[in-house]
Amino acid sequence: MQQLNYTMLCDYYELTMGNGYFLHGTQDRVSYFDLFFRSVPDGGGFAIAAGLEQAIDYVKNLRFTPEDLAFLRGKRMFSEGFLDYLAHFRFTGDIYAVPEGTPVFPNEPLMIVRAPAIQAQLLETFLLLSLNHQSLIATKASRIVRAAAGRPVMEFGSRRAQGADGAILGARAAYIAGCAGTACTLSDQLYHTPASGTMAHSWIQMFDDEYTAFKTYCEIYPHDVTLLVDTYNVLKSGIPNAIRAFREVLLPQGITECAVRLDSGDIAYLTRKMRKTLDEAGFPQCRIVVSNSLDEHIIDALLVQGAKVDAFGVGERMITSKSSPVFGGVYKLCAVEEDGELIPKIKISENTAKITNPHFKKIYRLYENETGKAIADQLCLFDEEIDSSRPLEIFDPDATWKRKTLQNFTARELLVPIFQNGECVYQTPSIEEIRDYCKTQLETLWDEVKRFDNPHQYYVDLSQKLWDVKHRLLEEHQKR
Amino acid sequence: MQQLNYTMLCDYYELTMGNGYFLHGTQDRVSYFDLFFRSVPDGGGFAIAAGLEQAIDYVKNLRFTPEDLAFLRGKRMFSEGFLDYLAHFRFTGDIYAVPEGTPVFPNEPLMIVRAPAIQAQLLETFLLLSLNHQSLIATKASRIVRAAAGRPVMEFGSRRAQGADGAILGARAAYIAGCAGTACTLSDQLYHTPASGTMAHSWIQMFDDEYTAFKTYCEIYPHDVTLLVDTYNVLKSGIPNAIRAFREVLLPQGITECAVRLDSGDIAYLTRKMRKTLDEAGFPQCRIVVSNSLDEHIIDALLVQGAKVDAFGVGERMITSKSSPVFGGVYKLCAVEEDGELIPKIKISENTAKITNPHFKKIYRLYENETGKAIADQLCLFDEEIDSSRPLEIFDPDATWKRKTLQNFTARELLVPIFQNGECVYQTPSIEEIRDYCKTQLETLWDEVKRFDNPHQYYVDLSQKLWDVKHRLLEEHQKR
Repeated sequence: MQQLNYTMLCDYYELTMGNGYFLHGTQDRVSYFDLFFRSVPDGGGFAIAAGLEQAIDYVKNLRFTPEDLAFLRGKRMFSEGFLDYLAHFRFTGDIYAVPEGTPVFPNEPLMIVRAPAIQAQLLETFLLLSLNHQSLIATKASRIVRAAAGRPVMEFGSRRAQGADGAILGARAAYIAGCAGTACTLSDQLYHTPASGTMAHSWIQMFDDEYTAFKTYCEIYPHDVTLLVDTYNVLKSGIPNAIRAFREVLLPQGITECAVRLDSGDIAYLTRKMRKTLDEAGFPQCRIVVSNSLDEHIIDALLVQGAKVDAFGVGERMITSKSSPVFGGVYKLCAVEEDGELIPKIKISENTAKITNPHFKKIYRLYENETGKAIADQLCLFDEEIDSSRPLEIFDPDATWKRKTLQNFTARELLVPIFQNGECVYQTPSIEEIRDYCKTQLETLWDEVKRFDNPHQYYVDLSQKLWDVKHRLLEEHQKR
Repeated sequence: MQQLNYTMLCDYYELTMGNGYFLHGTQDRVSYFDLFFRSVPDGGGFAIAAGLEQAIDYVKNLRFTPEDLAFLRGKRMFSEGFLDYLAHFRFTGDIYAVPEGTPVFPNEPLMIVRAPAIQAQLLETFLLLSLNHQSLIATKASRIVRAAAGRPVMEFGSRRAQGADGAILGARAAYIAGCAGTACTLSDQLYHTPASGTMAHSWIQMFDDEYTAFKTYCEIYPHDVTLLVDTYNVLKSGIPNAIRAFREVLLPQGITECAVRLDSGDIAYLTRKMRKTLDEAGFPQCRIVVSNSLDEHIIDALLVQGAKVDAFGVGERMITSKSSPVFGGVYKLCAVEEDGELIPKIKISENTAKITNPHFKKIYRLYENETGKAIADQLCLFDEEIDSSRPLEIFDPDATWKRKTLQNFTARELLVPIFQNGECVYQTPSIEEIRDYCKTQLETLWDEVKRFDNPHQYYVDLSQKLWDVKHRLLEEHQKR
């Protein structure tokens, strides 16, 4: 499938501002934008960054076609000089980003764009859209996978996704976060998220009776059987017919691996009964797969109730992050260059939580050497270096008297170069590498950060230098 | 932009079932599937059907490429006969659907597919995805537009959409439901949803001061000015600077049409103050546009509180239908043909609300001639005709003693032919026609059906013949 050119997937104001910068002669002023979020969906303790690969493809493909320019000319708002500028538009700036699969926290940049004003502005919508969408789904999927406590979780939600990309890339994000696979065939083809699937209720309805439907399926796919047992009555019909089909078709071939799926009813009660019946019939290896409006809380509750489940299929509540369907990433100006000098910029707000962190920054994640666990992230100025051979004092940027000195720690930079002077310098990892990296990184978080309700708030601190810049700007603003 | 081939955007089980039908020799058995939903998002009284145009494009483009077939062959699950069948796969069936923009109700088919089993099964995911997504957004947008009580509503949500299609087609669905336009440039280019936009906070931060930023913008776009007034302080800085820029740049050119936008803070309080200041300064024609996490309930409340708002910009809560982000359309087998005979099929469930309506059906909407208002919908067998010159008795399909005789009414069929024998026979209306049709159709609904909370439950009845078929199947099942 061809990569689409999403250059025109921008908010119209990016073009009116671009034309404005052009006419005002400031189109080439180098600007720095931070892409960050302010709160974690579902009140969680962290998010999983995702969507970078598609953001990279977008930037690589940025160009206005003659049709795009004709469309814009027809709006009678844009100068010919600007349209000519767009005709030769290419991204020439720098981009830094946190790799996909990294656990991330509020108020730290997932991405930094450094580019001439028009360029940096034009990228706003798509970069946000891509990172917001996939980080949302990866974050939700991570919760659901953790609730399943080691049992495989399959992504089943394409039909309820918000558009085709919602399905395809949602499945990608879910896989990064630890799902075992997806029902979405195209996501497998494009992104190598393993697809699987067996039967719908319609398969059973197409036959004269449930037994024949099951038997026929076992004959065709003896090595990959999952029979859907709730079309008529699970315990009186579905399970007895499944056992009969297994006995008649699989056992003579020496096959004992098989599965049944339950998509309705009281899962806790029914799976316990199913397990008992299957075991007594000599099918202890028959796995029980359940689906039907599951999410992390329902899975948690089912396991507490002693449901006998070997794998979960999760649809609409994961693919739309139903309980919290917006990832609120924003894209804010944090600095400009003037005569080669970096001028930090801040966005003031009545709501102090919405005041931005100015300047061109980097992020260090600080790990305790003894446990390997992440202790805090620190935002620094772009040219600061943390020397982990010396003690490091960190402090709460709001309650500055709360201080702590770290020793015997490791500092890792989170932001890596993606584009330099318009050239992509990043080798995108394979999806398996991203998924493995995500798993490893999750292990560095304390359980207190990972719990679903009232998680511990992980520290995202500012270096003293960055704190000083921010407070100088706040004071200057106050004086005006 | 090229139309994508979404043939592989299917759930994998559609392929395993397809291969199964093929090997079992039942691939050509003509099957009927209903696409319908069971409840309205947000507890509303009706939904707006949307997404048909993209579903049509999908069906027209259905074909497996050699790469698709190679991918499937690599799965080692599918017979060569089936893969050869897919190589020549085209849709050859019939599709009926409710036109986009139609108000629709639970349990009535928005679409019916009649096709050989493999074909009908393969279409399931994409048809659901397209109709679920756009009907969700159109339904939400309709609520928000109604709350705005005649004031224009702009769709601003691309950056928070769930993927690129979420943004582009979400904007399309929102426009169908009555939004005045969108910020999404690509949606305008592809679907003619008027795009507009002015400035972000970054425009103001790029200048040394707010006044210069405003003045520059007024000079460049004197005929289309909306100044964002909340970067520093709305009443002390934003509004005075806007008035100064209007006076210095617009008035000398004789321009009095202009606008300001507020994106934060206490909208009810601030807009009243802003209105007063603007009026006193001689700018009664200056429109006040507000945005910031709006939805139908907040807009409702703002207007009750006397907020002075001329237009609304709505982002994440519309483009994701945040409070209810899933449209639960399902796709269920309702009949098969055997030796030229139609055999109705029913899906039984412990939950009686989930029992399907069997058979190949049509929908009549019944309008009271005196008021033009819709009274009820009736599902009938495909070959029934309602003669509106004679009294019609309708009844509640669950509480069958509740009966009512209609006289002086008009019956309109809702489902129209879209494909016949694989050929598209439907001329898709323009987006303006769809939007106008939606508006006209909404006027046929009583206010009781349209209110947000506890709406009147509109009647979706079954004809006596259809009711008899359903109850015969239920009894037969019970006897087994």
